Parts: sequence; structure tokens; C-alpha cells
Amino acid sequence: MVRGAKLHITGAVNSHELLVVPTRALKEEDKDYAVSFAVPAETEGVTFVYGRQPSDTRRLEERRPDVGNLYYGGCESMVVFDDVFVPEERIFMKGEYPVTGRLVELFAAHHRASYGGCKVGVGDVLIGATAAIAEVQGTEKASHCKDKLAEMIHLNETLHAAALASAVKGVQTPSGAYAVDPLLANVCKLNVTRFPFEISRLAQDIAGGILVTMPSLEDQENPDVGPYVKKYLVGKSGVSGENRMRLLRLVENITLGTGAVSYLTESIHGAGSPQAQKIMIPRFCDIEAAKSYAYQLCGIEDLK
Amino acid sequence: MVRGAKLHITGAVNSHELLVVPTRALKEEDKDYAVSFAVPAETEGVTFVYGRQPSDTRRLEERRPDVGNLYYGGCESMVVFDDVFVPEERIFMKGEYPVTGRLVELFAAHHRASYGGCKVGVGDVLIGATAAIAEVQGTEKASHCKDKLAEMIHLNETLHAAALASAVKGVQTPSGAYAVDPLLANVCKLNVTRFPFEISRLAQDIAGGILVTMPSLEDQENPDVGPYVKKYLVGKSGVSGENRMRLLRLVENITLGTGAVSYLTESIHGAGSPQAQKIMIPRFCDIEAAKSYAYQLCGIEDLK
Amino acid sequence: MVRGAKLHITGAVNSHELLVVPTRALKEEDKDYAVSFAVPAETEGVTFVYGRQPSDTRRLEERRPDVGNLYYGGCESMVVFDDVFVPEERIFMKGEYPVTGRLVELFAAHHRASYGGCKVGVGDVLIGATAAIAEVQGTEKASHCKDKLAEMIHLNETLHAAALASAVKGVQTPSGAYAVDPLLANVCKLNVTRFPFEISRLAQDIAGGILVTMPSLEDQENPDVGPYVKKYLVGKSGVSGENRMRLLRLVENITLGTGAVSYLTESIHGAGSPQAQKIMIPRFCDIEAAKSYAYQLCGIEDLK
Amino acid sequence: MVRGAKLHITGAVNSHELLVVPTRALKEEDKDYAVSFAVPAETEGVTFVYGRQPSDTRRLEERRPDVGNLYYGGCESMVVFDDVFVPEERIFMKGEYPVTGRLVELFAAHHRASYGGCKVGVGDVLIGATAAIAEVQGTEKASHCKDKLAEMIHLNETLHAAALASAVKGVQTPSGAYAVDPLLANVCKLNVTRFPFEISRLAQDIAGGILVTMPSLEDQENPDVGPYVKKYLVGKSGVSGENRMRLLRLVENITLGTGAVSYLTESIHGAGSPQAQKIMIPRFCDIEAAKSYAYQLCGIEDLK
Repeated sequence: MVRGAKLHITGAVNSHELLVVPTRALKEEDKDYAVSFAVPAETEGVTFVYGRQPSDTRRLEERRPDVGNLYYGGCESMVVFDDVFVPEERIFMKGEYPVTGRLVELFAAHHRASYGGCKVGVGDVLIGATAAIAEVQGTEKASHCKDKLAEMIHLNETLHAAALASAVKGVQTPSGAYAVDPLLANVCKLNVTRFPFEISRLAQDIAGGILVTMPSLEDQENPDVGPYVKKYLVGKSGVSGENRMRLLRLVENITLGTGAVSYLTESIHGAGSPQAQKIMIPRFCDIEAAKSYAYQLCGIEDLK
Repeated sequence: MVRGAKLHITGAVNSHELLVVPTRALKEEDKDYAVSFAVPAETEGVTFVYGRQPSDTRRLEERRPDVGNLYYGGCESMVVFDDVFVPEERIFMKGEYPVTGRLVELFAAHHRASYGGCKVGVGDVLIGATAAIAEVQGTEKASHCKDKLAEMIHLNETLHAAALASAVKGVQTPSGAYAVDPLLANVCKLNVTRFPFEISRLAQDIAGGILVTMPSLEDQENPDVGPYVKKYLVGKSGVSGENRMRLLRLVENITLGTGAVSYLTESIHGAGSPQAQKIMIPRFCDIEAAKSYAYQLCGIEDLK
Repeated sequence: MVRGAKLHITGAVNSHELLVVPTRALKEEDKDYAVSFAVPAETEGVTFVYGRQPSDTRRLEERRPDVGNLYYGGCESMVVFDDVFVPEERIFMKGEYPVTGRLVELFAAHHRASYGGCKVGVGDVLIGATAAIAEVQGTEKASHCKDKLAEMIHLNETLHAAALASAVKGVQTPSGAYAVDPLLANVCKLNVTRFPFEISRLAQDIAGGILVTMPSLEDQENPDVGPYVKKYLVGKSGVSGENRMRLLRLVENITLGTGAVSYLTESIHGAGSPQAQKIMIPRFCDIEAAKSYAYQLCGIEDLK
Repeated sequence: MVRGAKLHITGAVNSHELLVVPTRALKEEDKDYAVSFAVPAETEGVTFVYGRQPSDTRRLEERRPDVGNLYYGGCESMVVFDDVFVPEERIFMKGEYPVTGRLVELFAAHHRASYGGCKVGVGDVLIGATAAIAEVQGTEKASHCKDKLAEMIHLNETLHAAALASAVKGVQTPSGAYAVDPLLANVCKLNVTRFPFEISRLAQDIAGGILVTMPSLEDQENPDVGPYVKKYLVGKSGVSGENRMRLLRLVENITLGTGAVSYLTESIHGAGSPQAQKIMIPRFCDIEAAKSYAYQLCGIEDLK
């Protein structure tokens, strides 16, 4: 029987199975917590409490005019295990506390490297939406807009580069599976905790204040104000105000709305908070070698 | 009779009067737009189209459990003038295009300096909420949390400093009114377009992922999940989960919700977008004097 | 009789008197160190050991062709007191340890605020030199150069703003003298530990690689290579290569040479290292007030 | 016969051969400049003018006490071709202007990617020296020093990651040779134009003001001041002042001395200045694909 809770469980409410593993290195006195097992999500005693997020109820509005991203979205919840029974054959770890440190380290490294793909894909969408808005609004040739868009791409690709590097420097483990390079995986994630905020800022800079002042897309149909909305929000070269607003709603979704949960806050805390990376990075760096280079170059012979 | 629209009009729907001024320096051929006047907000022909913002409908929810900020909030709209009649005595400018440049410059400088008070006050609230969360969650003595909180204060006070400086270097105009120093006012605003994003990122870092995964405050009353929410979200030293959640909702409001409209996007574009400041700053700086210092120090006599 | 040393003593070798004060808050057990006094620099037992700095010997070269800054420069040294006798009438503190904390705090605040004038003046020279180089090299209208120069001014004025603000928020002490606002003084200094590096980077970006590849100015007179140097280093519109090189040498001086000691390293450590400011800033900020604003806004009544 | 000059030619004075290629895409009217050839460095008509650099003459001092890096150093010069004869068999390009753009692009990409190894190696040395100084000075356990060292490693590895990524995403060209991914190579270099300045700042922060105030190592032998220098500069746990000073001189070399030419200024301009990368990055990014993702997600069907 298992009892406990996990406060942050992304996407679990739409999963069939819950796989439970320890979340940190455990010692002998923590032995009872050194467990791993899987149960179906609908097992008796398992309860999800669905989280509330920015702009969440827009998804429930009729016709969902202002949802921004028509097809995708995430969800967060807390999950509670209240005396859940786990059959023996579904238990994968039961007290083997000495392996928990290595398990967490490997899991964390993979998770951290994966953010250099996951968040970078969202970054691609944001870059595309922002470039499109600049065109629709006629600012795509302004030198500062070009510079800001180039900076967005640069930051996004810097995130991606570390994920690629951690994969290519990966090594095969005895099981046959490959493990990413943990130093570069942590470097990847630490950048992910920072750059999406700057990318978002640049996207909002290019998008303009209209991002947060424009009416609902539904107001276009309103007999009183619809004609005004269509007239005054029209884009360059006859691009409809509707298209302009749809692009802006997508940027709002990613930088201030439901998508920001995943693109901003989760980029900080998912796969471990920034301080976890700050602790791991020096641990995986060969500082002693670096010191020995310095000693040699400056002529110190009695230190090493 | 006046016809036209302004897409971004903060707070106007709760104002009695609309005061209209030109928004840029006008030339002779723009003479017809060199007008300034005031009309009551309910004048015939004036229409507001209320904007949609992140998490806006939380304010309309019964009991407003997750609104974050119980007492305050802003609103944005577009305003349309469709053949609005303005009586002669309420017209303050009618074709005097040569003064429009100076008018806009003075107005912009004041508006830009004011952001070093307005946004800094929001920053104070965010700093207070974040410090309180760190205490409730037991992380207030962690060195990285202390460092991040100090950085938040540092950035917020840097914003405030430039507003103070632009005021103290202000000069009395012939009318008797004082005008802020325009260089320092633009410097103030350019920092405002940047630091709130970093302050928000640090606040979210300290707050933790719970910021975007926690349930509604109303879920505490739910007979099924309420006991779990109360048990697992409880704060350090017996601070109630409710208080913890209220503080987190306030941080959500400011960094991802309705408050983020004002604290983030409006910090970029309100009082003029960043590029406007980038253009004005060198204009108000005495580059020729700076060049002359350089010439003198390096011994150049034939340039000046 | 006093014995001891101070490792960093800017400008003391060209001073008449040495005024000694404690450098940190002292406790009862440190009582013997709670002293303040003044002695002439040439007092018996006082020894200066002159420091070595980047490019220091250029000042000693005949004709000093590549010195960069013809008129000014600083010097650092360590000072040793080896049983120095101090006459009674020149002793200002003798054991009053309880006042040392306040003394250091006041002194540090003034020193930190002063950096928002001192380093900003060097910044002005660097901005002037960089603007002049851009003109000489024909890049002054390139949008990225204009943007970088505007950024340099912006950062430099941000430094200045906090110094002004700490002065204007200063208060009169019982002695009649004014004390700067210590929060803003520390904010000023913490920015000073950062921005000069970014300003230097931008200056070097605009200056171009020629900053570190060009010959000595004296090579212009060399019969073999002089004609080449004059021909290929000539500036735009006939500005002489000599003038171009002089400006570049000034930028080298400030960002990589003897001037960098003062503009970069001393900006970090002079008046207290960055961590000292990070510790003081939260101490002078009214966090309890900020927390109370947060409590009120989110409806918490039982915390304060 | 060739006539012309190149102002920046790193390391050429210690090379046997000079290989000349065009430095930008040429048009038909530039045909005469579309040449590539090789000549021995001592060919008649070839003249090098050796550049002056920060602290360059320290290398010429007797015993070179304060050189910092005992074994390595770079040199810059300008090279002049004054009617140099090139034999037919050593000419590799003669007027084929259409290929110059592709040549430059390929060369630049490789050069830019290589900086993610070259400058990262210097970064390793700087990290090692800084870590060693923190130990010698007893600050290695201070949380802010640990954080700053972790940040140095993080930034340095971020540089390295993009070089690795540009290599692993490289493609084989028809010649059989591999070409790096040009987007990631430019991303690598753009980070290189920025991070070494921040890494240097952090190194100087940890090193302390002693970096620029300490005496010459030779002063240790001076009968008057030597004993003071040895006594007051001694490191923690009996590490000699000499070792401490040697490490500090190495950091000075890299961040303010001859090494800074390569680590800082050359990091900006070598392999192309930052603006070159800012232009290339969007060119290699598939913005149209990114826009199409955005259109799809927000439901726009008539744009693509």
C-alpha cells in the first residue's frame, strides 16, 4: 500500500499508467521510500487534482475564439496516492536505496537534455508567429525588428545546440541504452531556465502593445463594434484583421497565457529547478584538470 | 467632427473625460491632425471596444477564488471616434503643427519617467510576495534564494533611481511647471522595458513550479479533494495552504495573469516602445562634448 | 606604534597624508584594531610597494607613442606600516569599536555612490572615443553601430542615475553633513560592477579588430613600413591614420590597458566587492512593508 | 603581381606560407580581386608590420617575471603585398568571382565553429586559474564564489556545445570533406562574441582587487620590500605568495593583458564581427517553415 502525493505532474491526467520513481538520492534511513512501481491511472486510491492556469477557461468558451493555439495545450495537476495497492509484479524497486542517486541523475540528465528539443520547438512556433506579425504589421524590414528576430533565433538555437551536443557526447551504458552527457544536459537546461523569458520579451516587443489591448476575435461579429474592429485592425497589404488577431492570440498564449505555463514557468522548474543545474554543472566538470593547465602555464610546480 | 481610433487606451473606460493629443511630430501636410481637445467619455460617436487579456474572466467568476489581486486591476481597450462633435471651447489645438513635436517629446518624457514609479510599485508587491513565499516554503535562508531576492530588489531600485534622477535634474519651464530631464526619463523607460521580465523570472524561480500546478483555492472546500489540498499544500510552521496559495496566485497574477499585461507587455510598449527610447537617448546626449574629451586625452588637435 | 598592511591603496603614492580607518564592523575582541589616525606619507616605517598593471611600462617609453591617454593615469600599490609612531594629536579613534560598523557603512555608501560619477566620466570618454572612431571608419550610420552606441550611453546614464538618486534622497546628519541614501548607493555600485564590461565590449565591437592588430604609432616614422602604415590606416574623408590610431589607443587604454585597471577591475572591487552590495541591498530595503502590501492584496489577514 | 594589404593577420609572422583568399562575395566588376594563391612568407614585396598589444613588452623583460603565461602567446600584424609576383602554379583562383560567396561562407562557418573549441580551451585555463585562486585565498566555499565559478563553467560549456552541434550536424560535400552546419556555427560564434567578457568579469570578481594592485613577482627578491611582499601576500594554508601571484598574473594575462587580445577582442572580431553572424543566422533559419507552424496552430488558412 502506498500513500503520498506529487504536487507537479505534467500531462498525467491524459496518461494510461503512472510510473513512480524516487526523486532524489536516498539513504538507508529513507529505505521505505526507495520504491518504483507502475499502476493504471484509474487505480483505486489515486486522485488527481487538476491545476488552474492562466487563461485556462478560454478553452471552455463556446467556439473558443481567443484560445490562441487551436489544437494543443498542456495540463498540470497534483496526484495523490491514498493507500493504493500495488501488485508484486508491478514493483520494480523495493528498498534498493543505493541505486536511487544514479537513477535520479540519469533520469534528470535525459529530461534536461530533452528540454533543448521540447522548448525549442515552442520557440520555433513563437519565432514563426512573430515573424508573421512583423510582416502583417509592416515592420519586418525595420532594422531593430530584424535584429530582435535574429536574436530570438540565436537564443533558440543556442538551446538546441546543447541538447544536440549532450546527445552526441552520450555513451552507451551496459544495458545497451545510451545516456546523454550529463554536463552538457545540465548546461542545456540551465539555458532553458533563462532564454525563453528573453525570447518572449523580444516577441512581445515586435508584436506591439496590440497584443494585450485588442478585442476578442468574436467582437468582429458584433453588429455595433465589429465594423470598427475589422477596419482598424486590418493588416498591411490587405491582410485581414482576423489573421492578425489570430497570430497575436498565439503569441499571447505562449508568452502570457496557457502556453506560458509550459514555455516559461515549466522551463524554469521542469526537470529540476535552476539551482539543481548550478550544483550539477561543476560536479561534472573536471576542475582538477583545469587547475593543472593553469599551474603549468604560470609555472607553478608544487601545486597540482 | 472628429473621426479616427486609438488602439491602446489604458484605463479610459473608467475615465470621465478623454483628452486627445497628437502622438507624433506633425508636418504642414498633417495639419488637419494637429488637434487637441477633450470630450466626455460618453459623448455620442465615442465607442470603446474592451480588450481581452490573459485570465480576464477569473474576475467574473463567482467568489473570484483565483483572482490573485483582490482589489486592483487594469483594463485596456480601443477607442473609436466616429464623427464626434467637439464644441469650440473644448478645442485646445487646431492646426498648430509646429508645436506637436515638442508636445509629444515633453509628454513622452513625463510618461517614461513615471514608469520608474508605477512599475516599481508593482515590483515592490512582487518582491514582497516572493519573499513571503520563500518564508512559507522554508527556502528563505537558501543562499541562492537570498541572492535572487537581492537581485530583484536591485533591479527594481535601479528602475526607481532613474525616475528620481530625471525628476531632480528637471527644469522649470516658462509656464512655471517643471519638466523632467528627458535623457534620464528615456533611460528609465528603456530599463523598464527589460527588468520586469527578469524580476518575474526570478520571482517564478523562487516561487517554484507550484505556481502553475496548484489547484483552485475553491478546491479546498471540495469534499473529495479538499482534505488532500489542505494537507499537501500546507506551508512551513503551520502556515495554511490557503495563505500559501493566495500568495502564489498574486505572483501568477503579476507574472502570467491579468497583472502581467501591465507589468510586462505594457512595460515594453506603454509610453513608447523600446526603439523610441533607443532613438531619443543619443539625441539628448552631448556626443560632441564626449568626442572632444576623447580628442583632448589622446592628443588630437585637428578634429573637434 | 602601528603595524600592518593594506594591499590595495589607489592613488596613495601621490598623496601627502594617509588617513587610516577600520574597514569593517569590529567587536570588543577586535578593540585594538578600532583605530583611526593620519600620518604623512613619508613617515618612518611607511613603505609603499608599487603595483604592476597591464601595459604599465608604455608610460616609460621614450615619447610614449602608444600610451593612449596622454595626460592621466592611476596607480595602485600596497602600503606597509612597520612600527609607525603616531602622535597623540593625530589619533581620531582609539578603541571605540561600537562606532566602527556605522563608520564603515557611511564611508562605503559615499564611496559606492561616487562611482556613479567617477566611472561614468570614464564612460563618457569611451563613448566619445567610440563615436569618433565610428565616424573615422565610416560606420557611424550603420544601424547596428547606432544601436550599440545608444546602448553604451544608456548603460552609462543608468549608472549615473543611481548616483544622482542616492544624493537627492540623502539626509542631513546631526553633524550637518549630508549622507547619501545607502540603498541607492549600493544599487549604483552593483551596476558599476557589471556595466563597464558590457560598455567595453560594445566599444571594442564598434572599434573593430584594428584595436589589437595595429602597429605602434611610432611605426609611422619608420622609413620601411611608415608609408604602408600611413596609406592603409587612413580614415574616412582623409582623416589621418595617426588620428585614427590615437583614438584606438585611447580605447585600448580604457578597455585593455592601464585604464582598464580603473575602469574594469576597480569597478568590480573598489568601494567593496559585488557581494558586499548584494548583502547590503536587502538590508536597506523594507521587505516587511513589501510583504504587507502583498498580504493585503491577496487577502491574507493572519500574516503580517 | 599583387598589391594590397590585410590589416589583421593573426599568427602569420610565425607561418611559412601565406594563403590568400577573397574575404567576401564578389561581383563581376570585382573580378580582378577574385584571386587565391599562396606564397612563402619571405617572398619579396611581402612586409609584416608587427602589432602592439596590451602588456606586450613584458615578454621582453629580463626573466619575464610578470608575463603570466610562461609558454604561449599570440601575435597580430598587418601584412602588405607591394607588387608581389605569384608563379602560375601557385594560383588557385583567377577571376572565378561566382564562387567567392560560397567560399567565404564555407570558410567563415568553419572558422566560426572552431572558436567553440579555441576560446573554450582558454576558458578552461581561466576557470582552472580562478578555481585555484579561490582555494589559495580561502573563498572557495563561499556560496557566491561557488555560484560564479559554476556560471563560468556553464557559459564556457555553452560555447563548446554549439561547436559540437555544428560538427555533428555537418554534411559531407561532394569533395568528400565535411562542412559544419552553418546556422549552428554562426550561433556558436555569436555567443563567443559575448560570453568571454562575462567569464572574465566573473574571474576578476573571484580573483579580487589584488589582481591589479599587487607588486611585480620580482619584488619578492628586493631586500627592502621583498619580506613584506612575501609576508602579506601569503596564501591560505601556507601556499606561497609566489604561487598566488603567478595564478593572478595568468588571470591578468587572459583578461587584461596580451592574452586578452585573443580571448576578448579577437573573440568579437575574429572569424567575422558579430553583425556578420546576426545577418547569417536568420538566413540559415527556415523562417517560412516556422511561420507555417504558427499559421496552422492559430487557424490561418489563407496565408502560408
